[in-house]
Amino acid sequence: MTSSRTTPALTPDTPPTGLDASRLHPSVCDPVMDSMRLLSETAFRHPEAISFASGRPYEEFFDFADLHRYLDRFVAELRARGVPDQRIKRAVFQYGPTAGVIRDDVARVLATDESIHVDPDAVLITHGCQEAILVALRGLFTSPDDVLLTVSPCYVGITGAAKVLDIPVEPVQEREHGLDPDDVAVAARRVRAAGKRPVACYVTPDFANPSGHSLPPAARRRLLRVAETEDLLILEDNPYGLFGREGATFPTLKALDRSRSVIHLGSFAKTAFPGARVGYLVADQPVVTADGTTRPFAEELAKVKSMVTVNTAGVSQAMIGGLLAETGYSMRAATRGLADLYVGHLELTLECLAEHFPPAAHADHGVRWNVPTGGFFLLLEVPFEADLAALERSARDHGVAWAPMSMFYVGDGGTRVIRLGYSSLTREEIREGITRLAHFIRASTPPRPSASAGAGEAA
Amino acid sequence: MTSSRTTPALTPDTPPTGLDASRLHPSVCDPVMDSMRLLSETAFRHPEAISFASGRPYEEFFDFADLHRYLDRFVAELRARGVPDQRIKRAVFQYGPTAGVIRDDVARVLATDESIHVDPDAVLITHGCQEAILVALRGLFTSPDDVLLTVSPCYVGITGAAKVLDIPVEPVQEREHGLDPDDVAVAARRVRAAGKRPVACYVTPDFANPSGHSLPPAARRRLLRVAETEDLLILEDNPYGLFGREGATFPTLKALDRSRSVIHLGSFAKTAFPGARVGYLVADQPVVTADGTTRPFAEELAKVKSMVTVNTAGVSQAMIGGLLAETGYSMRAATRGLADLYVGHLELTLECLAEHFPPAAHADHGVRWNVPTGGFFLLLEVPFEADLAALERSARDHGVAWAPMSMFYVGDGGTRVIRLGYSSLTREEIREGITRLAHFIRASTPPRPSASAGAGEAA
Repeated sequence: MTSSRTTPALTPDTPPTGLDASRLHPSVCDPVMDSMRLLSETAFRHPEAISFASGRPYEEFFDFADLHRYLDRFVAELRARGVPDQRIKRAVFQYGPTAGVIRDDVARVLATDESIHVDPDAVLITHGCQEAILVALRGLFTSPDDVLLTVSPCYVGITGAAKVLDIPVEPVQEREHGLDPDDVAVAARRVRAAGKRPVACYVTPDFANPSGHSLPPAARRRLLRVAETEDLLILEDNPYGLFGREGATFPTLKALDRSRSVIHLGSFAKTAFPGARVGYLVADQPVVTADGTTRPFAEELAKVKSMVTVNTAGVSQAMIGGLLAETGYSMRAATRGLADLYVGHLELTLECLAEHFPPAAHADHGVRWNVPTGGFFLLLEVPFEADLAALERSARDHGVAWAPMSMFYVGDGGTRVIRLGYSSLTREEIREGITRLAHFIRASTPPRPSASAGAGEAA
Repeated sequence: MTSSRTTPALTPDTPPTGLDASRLHPSVCDPVMDSMRLLSETAFRHPEAISFASGRPYEEFFDFADLHRYLDRFVAELRARGVPDQRIKRAVFQYGPTAGVIRDDVARVLATDESIHVDPDAVLITHGCQEAILVALRGLFTSPDDVLLTVSPCYVGITGAAKVLDIPVEPVQEREHGLDPDDVAVAARRVRAAGKRPVACYVTPDFANPSGHSLPPAARRRLLRVAETEDLLILEDNPYGLFGREGATFPTLKALDRSRSVIHLGSFAKTAFPGARVGYLVADQPVVTADGTTRPFAEELAKVKSMVTVNTAGVSQAMIGGLLAETGYSMRAATRGLADLYVGHLELTLECLAEHFPPAAHADHGVRWNVPTGGFFLLLEVPFEADLAALERSARDHGVAWAPMSMFYVGDGGTRVIRLGYSSLTREEIREGITRLAHFIRASTPPRPSASAGAGEAA
């Protein structure tokens, strides 16, 4: 028997016993989690740095008065529907139904904004999209041989949730312009060939975090065919879908889904505000239960959610419910101005980059970037290691922060790539920030080989 | 390869494919979860029944105006501390620190109310206490041989969270008057003898759900010694601790803990309101990490929480933060009136029971109950199976609902016991409810053996 507790070196401040990190769950000591912590700590150490590191929404519009109004509007809306005050109070103050009190509202918004037509009982309201991810994974994965495919690079929340649940992950590497659905089929077969079961594949088809890539409509249809052929569910994460140019966004996978292959994961963190922590999942797959009845998968997943957080906060749901009522149940219409602002931010970031790193001189500065059509992020390739040490230099010496892309890879990759998130900055900060970034990049770029060496290379 | 999806009988409404329940995680199809669902459905089918089934707080005091005031107070409080408005807005609207924005406030309340003195960085704010339970379990349990001890009967949230994480559970049966700490030592040794590792033991020392039992001070000290001797952590769940008679509550295990053996789990669901979903854990155990630094376990658990829900809703924390400021950072003082109300409810329930089932006649009616000194629950032994079918009869034919105790046992037990929760009812409802319950019990009690048979038995 090894003791789970060790005695650290004794000093007057040292407590009698400690926990041995090696006996704790790997999710506690996970290096990706530690990277995230170090990223935050860098921001904390250098608060004056202009930060392209985050995926936070723009915050200049936040107003305390809105919260009061949303709450009042929710109450007014339910009163108008004839709900007695005692029941409204219960919805806001008490323990509530695990599946949520604004399922109908969310189903209505999904129909209007996304042409996703599902019964409210196929919707589960969650404490942010992260809980939706965790709950969906928990329901679907049961054996150590059940494997999650995920596009790589990807949002750390999917690999983190898999880590929490000890779910093995098989990456599907994005190509230069994004995911190739055939690569999903190849990965699924690779998993099967190893005697394991590929259960689901995680993708963010619209303006992905971190790459900014979007899946063209034809590739969406091909991905759905792959899901059917390979007997895979698709976990479609859609936090940024509304943030493209007007009229230039694509239908979600769930809207195209004819075989109930897609579990759709959504969030009001970017369209409303993150502080409500209201997300949802759509899971209309029928589950035939032991007693012979059939219920949508979302209702079965509610049991898992009840053991994770009981139910989503009534006050949060009330605020989002009130906000949805204010928008006439269309976030697409309500966030059009916000989407234009983000597209403007993207365009400005691209312009500033082109100014500092003129395309004609590409061969000289070794800096390249992709050109997303919306969302919160773009990628910048630099001619040096873009690791946490480089970030520290960038923030400390040049007053600009960003996220190392290597953090988002399943396995190795992205060591010389930076993720630039422009969503939370002002236009002035973007201009100044890219100027600082250009200085940092030039200061970090190793000397070019001499002309003769260059000639030798070309030979 | 077995397909993960099956095709249910085809009707025009039947979707093309379904999910095979047997391939989903056991937490989806768990019988306890199903019991909870059936319990809710009974309540839903019989809304006119007076319900002793829930552990909801009293709701007559809930007032929408309070929410606005809490929010304003939180903002005013931070302004008074010199925090600029932009940072206050971030705390409420944006993604926030995973560990929470009201850690200092909660640490202050714990010091005042519970004599628990910890640094704020040993506190983790969670989306209700359920998330605290899940996150603590996840951090502590890593191998299939790591076993959770739990008092039985117990709150379904602990066994449910263990189920979600595939953690094996070893019950420690409560005796007639509650937990005997020596039984914890015996269970730990039994687990070790089976070649496994007992990691932690879950207990609710004050007015436990479901039994209402409290652990006397001497037993608390003995339990802490058992924890040290058996190298166990204690997971102390404390939702009801303030709801005893004035001056008649005991110190928490964490307040008595000199060896950092206790992780304390708390909630504002009962002292404030459940709709905020704000809970917390206190974990001051030092963890020596790979890089040689020492951090409190709560900070390491924050990494797990970040992958479960990212962070607790800013709006919820703001409301609880504002409420705490209003109370002068003592929930004990602020909830004294509420505690008296609950104690009054308990006394009234006991009086009504004694009226309908006079003690002198115990031998005749076969009905017995325990006498907790506070909290939300008491137990009632009846001379018939108190299962979901009995509950349905009780609600339908007699207009009174309750919870079958068998739901709270790890393994078998409690088949003829009812849990009575009186917290959410009015005094009138308690009086009428116990009258109805007495009718139901008499109607369900099998005929007594004849006098001669009785004499034969006594012989």
